[in-house]
Amino acid sequence: MSDRPDTPLLDKVQVPADLKQFSDAELRQVAHELRSETISAVSETGGHLGAGLGVVELTVALHAIWDAPKDRIIWDVSHQSYPHKILTGRRDRIRTLRQKDGLSGFTKRSESPYDPFGAAHSSTSISAALGFAVARDLGGAPDHGLGDAIAVIGDGAMSAGMAFEAMNNAGHLNKRLIVILNDNDMSIAPPVGALSKYLSRLYGEAPFHDLKAAAKGMASLLPPPFQEGAKRAKEMLKSMTVGGTLFEELGFSYIGPLDGHDMSQLLPVLRTVKARATGPVLIHVVTKKGKGYGPAERADDKGHATAKFDVISGKQHKAPSNAPSYTSVFGKELVRLAAVDPRVCAVTAAMPDGTGLNLMAERYPSRCFDVGIAEQHGVTFAAGLAAGGLRPFCAMYSTFLQRGYDQVVHDVAIQRLPVRFAIDRAGLVGADGATHAGSFDIAFMANLPGMVVMAAADEAELMHMVATAAAHDEGPIAFRYPRGEGVGVELPEAGEVLEIGKGRMIRTGKRVAILSFGTRLSEVLTACEALEARGISPTVADARFAKPLDRDLILQLAEDHEALITIEEGAVGGFGSHVAQLLSEEGAFDTGLRFRSMVLPDTFIDQSSPADMYATAGLNAEDIEAKVLDVLGVAQVGKRKA
Amino acid sequence: MSDRPDTPLLDKVQVPADLKQFSDAELRQVAHELRSETISAVSETGGHLGAGLGVVELTVALHAIWDAPKDRIIWDVSHQSYPHKILTGRRDRIRTLRQKDGLSGFTKRSESPYDPFGAAHSSTSISAALGFAVARDLGGAPDHGLGDAIAVIGDGAMSAGMAFEAMNNAGHLNKRLIVILNDNDMSIAPPVGALSKYLSRLYGEAPFHDLKAAAKGMASLLPPPFQEGAKRAKEMLKSMTVGGTLFEELGFSYIGPLDGHDMSQLLPVLRTVKARATGPVLIHVVTKKGKGYGPAERADDKGHATAKFDVISGKQHKAPSNAPSYTSVFGKELVRLAAVDPRVCAVTAAMPDGTGLNLMAERYPSRCFDVGIAEQHGVTFAAGLAAGGLRPFCAMYSTFLQRGYDQVVHDVAIQRLPVRFAIDRAGLVGADGATHAGSFDIAFMANLPGMVVMAAADEAELMHMVATAAAHDEGPIAFRYPRGEGVGVELPEAGEVLEIGKGRMIRTGKRVAILSFGTRLSEVLTACEALEARGISPTVADARFAKPLDRDLILQLAEDHEALITIEEGAVGGFGSHVAQLLSEEGAFDTGLRFRSMVLPDTFIDQSSPADMYATAGLNAEDIEAKVLDVLGVAQVGKRKA
Repeated sequence: MSDRPDTPLLDKVQVPADLKQFSDAELRQVAHELRSETISAVSETGGHLGAGLGVVELTVALHAIWDAPKDRIIWDVSHQSYPHKILTGRRDRIRTLRQKDGLSGFTKRSESPYDPFGAAHSSTSISAALGFAVARDLGGAPDHGLGDAIAVIGDGAMSAGMAFEAMNNAGHLNKRLIVILNDNDMSIAPPVGALSKYLSRLYGEAPFHDLKAAAKGMASLLPPPFQEGAKRAKEMLKSMTVGGTLFEELGFSYIGPLDGHDMSQLLPVLRTVKARATGPVLIHVVTKKGKGYGPAERADDKGHATAKFDVISGKQHKAPSNAPSYTSVFGKELVRLAAVDPRVCAVTAAMPDGTGLNLMAERYPSRCFDVGIAEQHGVTFAAGLAAGGLRPFCAMYSTFLQRGYDQVVHDVAIQRLPVRFAIDRAGLVGADGATHAGSFDIAFMANLPGMVVMAAADEAELMHMVATAAAHDEGPIAFRYPRGEGVGVELPEAGEVLEIGKGRMIRTGKRVAILSFGTRLSEVLTACEALEARGISPTVADARFAKPLDRDLILQLAEDHEALITIEEGAVGGFGSHVAQLLSEEGAFDTGLRFRSMVLPDTFIDQSSPADMYATAGLNAEDIEAKVLDVLGVAQVGKRKA
Repeated sequence: MSDRPDTPLLDKVQVPADLKQFSDAELRQVAHELRSETISAVSETGGHLGAGLGVVELTVALHAIWDAPKDRIIWDVSHQSYPHKILTGRRDRIRTLRQKDGLSGFTKRSESPYDPFGAAHSSTSISAALGFAVARDLGGAPDHGLGDAIAVIGDGAMSAGMAFEAMNNAGHLNKRLIVILNDNDMSIAPPVGALSKYLSRLYGEAPFHDLKAAAKGMASLLPPPFQEGAKRAKEMLKSMTVGGTLFEELGFSYIGPLDGHDMSQLLPVLRTVKARATGPVLIHVVTKKGKGYGPAERADDKGHATAKFDVISGKQHKAPSNAPSYTSVFGKELVRLAAVDPRVCAVTAAMPDGTGLNLMAERYPSRCFDVGIAEQHGVTFAAGLAAGGLRPFCAMYSTFLQRGYDQVVHDVAIQRLPVRFAIDRAGLVGADGATHAGSFDIAFMANLPGMVVMAAADEAELMHMVATAAAHDEGPIAFRYPRGEGVGVELPEAGEVLEIGKGRMIRTGKRVAILSFGTRLSEVLTACEALEARGISPTVADARFAKPLDRDLILQLAEDHEALITIEEGAVGGFGSHVAQLLSEEGAFDTGLRFRSMVLPDTFIDQSSPADMYATAGLNAEDIEAKVLDVLGVAQVGKRKA
C-alpha cells in the first residue's frame, strides 16, 4: 500500500449511503481522494481512464444525493464507471479491473446491485432509464424497490439515433426521468456532427450559471400548484442560458450548462432536481475528460484507454509488438488503394483510430467520413456512396455492425450495392469482454443473398482481401479480422485480388481434413505438429470464403477423407453451418462422413486475455488436437468419445 | 378503358421531362389527372393508397422542376411512390402493382433508372441522399451523371433515430442536399413522440406562408456574395414562421410550413431552392394523407393500405377469412394474460394495428407503449421494463426486429433480461416482397446464448407460446409466426405453458422423419398424404423450439430413421443448422444418417402470393414430397438425385 494515495475520507465509504455523513466541503475532499484512487488503480490495471476522471465530482454528487440501489443510476457506455465502482462496495476489487475473474470494465447487473443496467455499447441509457421509470409508475417491484431513474450520457453518445429515439419517447410519456448530459466534447475521438456544434454553442457563448442563478432557475421545476411562478422562473432561466431549445422542443426541461467539476454548482442543482422534478429533465454538465491528471489531460485522446502506467510520469508500460496489428494492416492497404483509385472512400462510426481509418483521414480527408456514433446511418450512407459510383469501405467492429444490421440487409444486400464491409474485432476481444465480442457476424452476414464473406487467416491474407474487396463491384462484400497483432508473416508490397469463392490448400495429409475460416489457422497448424507426433497427418485448407463456398474444394475434401472438421471464430449458424448445408445437400453425410464444426460455445465469455478466452471457448490448438483424435476414434485420457 | 379517368394532359407524359412543356396552371391539371389515375389503378390492384394521394402535387412539382434521373429523388419508405411511377415511364404497368412479375409496391433500383435508391423500411432516404450528394462532389460518375439529391421523408419516418443521425451528419458536412419533410401527421398509425408534437406546433400555431412571403424568404438561400442580405432575409423568414429551430440547430436551412397541395406555394419555393440552395435545406410541407379521395380521407388509417375497391363507393373487395389471423390470436391471448397479470405490458414500434397490440392499447392503455418508428429504443426500453420487474412483450415484425438487433444482443441477451419477443410476419409475406420478408430471425436469434426461440405451427400453438413466454422469467424468449390466417384449428380457452425445449410427435412412421419448425407443418402433413399413396409413411414431429433444441427427440428420430429432414421458414443458419450441429457433435452423421435441411433459398424473392413465393422457395408440399423421395433414393421423373 506504500504507493497508494492517502484517502482518509474515502476509506469511510463502504456503500454510497456512507456519503450522507459528509458536509459539502468534505464531499469535495472525497472527490479529490476518489480521483487519486482511480488513477492509482488504473495505473495498475490499464483501462479507460479519462472518462472516469471526468465524472469524479458527478459520481460523488449523484451518490451523495440519491439512494442507490433503490434509485437507478445508469452509466451510458459505462467505461466511466470506475469511480462509481469504488464508491459502491467494489473498492477492494478495483485493481482486478478487466482481468480474468476480476471486475468488468463496464457496469454489469450480475456484478453488483448498484449496476441496474449494464452497458458497453453507447446510447442505451435513456431507453433503459425510461423503462425503469415506467416500471416504477406501473408498480413493478424488483429488488430494492424502484426510485428515480437517472441516465448519465456523454455528448458523443447523445448523437446516436437511439438516444434521440429515447428522448423523443420520453418527452412524449412525460414521466419523471433525469438525464444528465455529460458534455466533454470527446467521445473516443472528438465528436462530429451538427449536435456537437450545437452543444458547443450552448456553453461556448455564455459563462456557466452561477450557483444562485441556477438554484433560482430551478423554481421552474416546482410542482403544479406553483405553475404560474414556475412559468416565470422558466422564462428567467431561459434568459440566463444560451439555449437548450432543442431539448425543450423534445419535451424536456433543460438545465445548464453547469461546470461538472464544481461541486458548488452540482450539489444544489441536483438537490433541487431531486426535490422538485416532475417530468423529464435534462441537466447539461460540462466536464473535461481526463480531468485532474496531467498526462491524460494533455493526451490527444484525453487518456481514453490506457495500458498500465507510471503515475508520476504517465508513461505507459506497453509490451513491444512483434507484428503489425490487423487494424493497421487494413488501414495501410486501404490508403495504398485510395492512392491509385479516387473512387475508394471510407466510412467510420466514431472510430477513426480503432478501425485504422486515421491513416485514410490524414491522407485523403475528403474521402474519409466519420459519421459519429451512428452505425445505421453509416451503413446506408455507404450504400448511397456506392449507388453514386464510389467504392466505399464501411469499417466497423463486428459488435457494432450489429447496430446497422437492417441497413446491411435492406439498403445494401437487397440492392446488391458494392459496399465493402471491413469487420474489425471479429471473434473474442479480450479485456472488453462479452459485450465487445464479434461472435455473430459470420452467421448474420453469410445468409444474406449476394453477400460475399471472407475471413483473413493472417495479415498478408487481410491485404489480399482488402484488394479483393476494392475490386469487387458486383455486389456487397465483407471481410473480417481479429483484434490485435498479426502472426508475423511477411507482407507483400500490395494485396492481390483473390478469386471469389476459392479457398487454398495449406497442407495435404490423410484421413482427416481441417477446413479453417479465419485466424484459427495458426492454431490448426500447431495442432497438426502435435498430431504428427502421434502419426496423424491432417489435411488443412484455408476456406477464405464463407460465402460463396468453395464447393469443389469442400466436396473434394469430403470425398478424400474419413472426417472433416471446420473451425471458425464465430457462433453456430455461420461458416460451419453453411458447409454442413452443402455437404448434406450433396449427400456427403449419407455415406458416413464424420463431420464436426468447431464454433464459439453457447455462452457469453467474460473478459480475459484472448488466448484464455479461446481456451474457454475450446478453440485453441489442444482443443483442435483433441477434436481430431476424437473424430478418428483415438482414445484420449479424460475425453468423452462422442 | 371505359372506367378509366379522362387524362388528356397526363397522356402526354411518358417521361418526367415531358412536364416541362406545361404552364403552372397545366401542372395543376396534371396533378388532378394523376390523382384520378392513381385511385383508378389502386382500385384494381389494392395497395398503399393514402400516402400516394398525399404527395400528388409534390410529385408533379418535383418532376416538373428537377431533372430525374440525373437528379436523384429518393422516396422514403416509398409506398407513396405510385404517382412517381406513373410519371416515370411505368404508367403502362401501374395496374400490375404488387403482383407477381408486376411492379413493386416500392421503389426499386432494378425496376427503373428513376428509382435511384429503393426502400420499404423507413427513414433511410436522408442517409442515401447524403451519399449521392457526397459522391457527386467527389466526382462519382454513375449512369446519368449526378445532380441534386432530394429526400422526401414523412414526419413519422423523421422520428426514427436513423433520420436524426443522417440530419446530424448532413448538417456537419454542409453539402447541398434537399430534404422535404412530408408532414401528414400520420405514419401508419398517428405518429407519437415529442417530435410529432413539435411539428404540430410549427403549423398549428401559424397560417401557411403566402406565396410572396415564402419567395421573399428564399433570399436567405442566396449564395455567399449576398450573405448580408441573406442574413436579413433569413431573419425576416424566421419572423414569419413559428419555428424550425430544431432543424436549424442541426445545420439545415428551414423553410416552411407550406401547403403541400397548393401548387402556387410549392412551385415557386422549390424553384427558388433549386436555383439558390448551397448547403442542406429542409422544406417542411404539410399534406393530407388520402387527399382528394373521400373514402380515404374519412378512413381512420387515411387509406394507408387497401384491398381492391370500388372507386365510387370506396368499398373494399376483401375475401372473407376462414380463420383468425395469427396477429389477432396473439393480440387476444396477450390481453387475456394482461387481465390476470398486471406485470404484462407491451411495446410496439409504430405498428399497434399490424402487430395486434391495438387490442392491448384499448384495454390496458397504460401498459401498451407505441414508441414510434424506433426499434432500437423499443428493444432497450423493453429491457428496462423487464429489469424494472415487468413482463414486457416486444412485438415487432421479423424484418423490423433487424433494426434492433444490437439491442437484442447487448441489452437483452447478455443481461438475460426476460423480454418476450413476439416476431410477427416471420417467413415470406406476399405483396410487400423481399424487403419485408422475415427470413433471418431464426438464425440471428437462435445463436444468442440464453435466448429461447419458438415457432408456432398453428394458431393454437401460438396461444401456447404466448402463455409460455409470459411465464418465462429466467431470460429472453422469442416466438415467431407468419402473416395471414391460421390453419383453422380449434382454439383453446387459454394458452398452456409449454415445457421449454420440448417438441411434440405428430405422427409416427418409418424410414424418414420430418422435423418441422413453424407453419410448414401443414405442408408437411399434406406431403405425407401423397407419400402414403406411394407406400412411404414418414414420421413427423413439431420441434416447437429452435433453442433449446429437444435433444432427446432429435437424437431418437436420428436413431430410428434412415433419413431426417428439417424444414423451416427461414434462411440457412437457423433451425436446421442447429440440428446439424447437434447431430454432428453427437456423431449421428458418422453412421450415415441421411440429413437434409429445407430452408429458404439464397435469393431475395420478389412479391407474389405467399403460396407462390413458397413454391419459388421450394418449401411447399410437393417440394417436401420430392425431398423425401430423393433422400430415400426413390426415382422421380425430372428430379436430380443428390
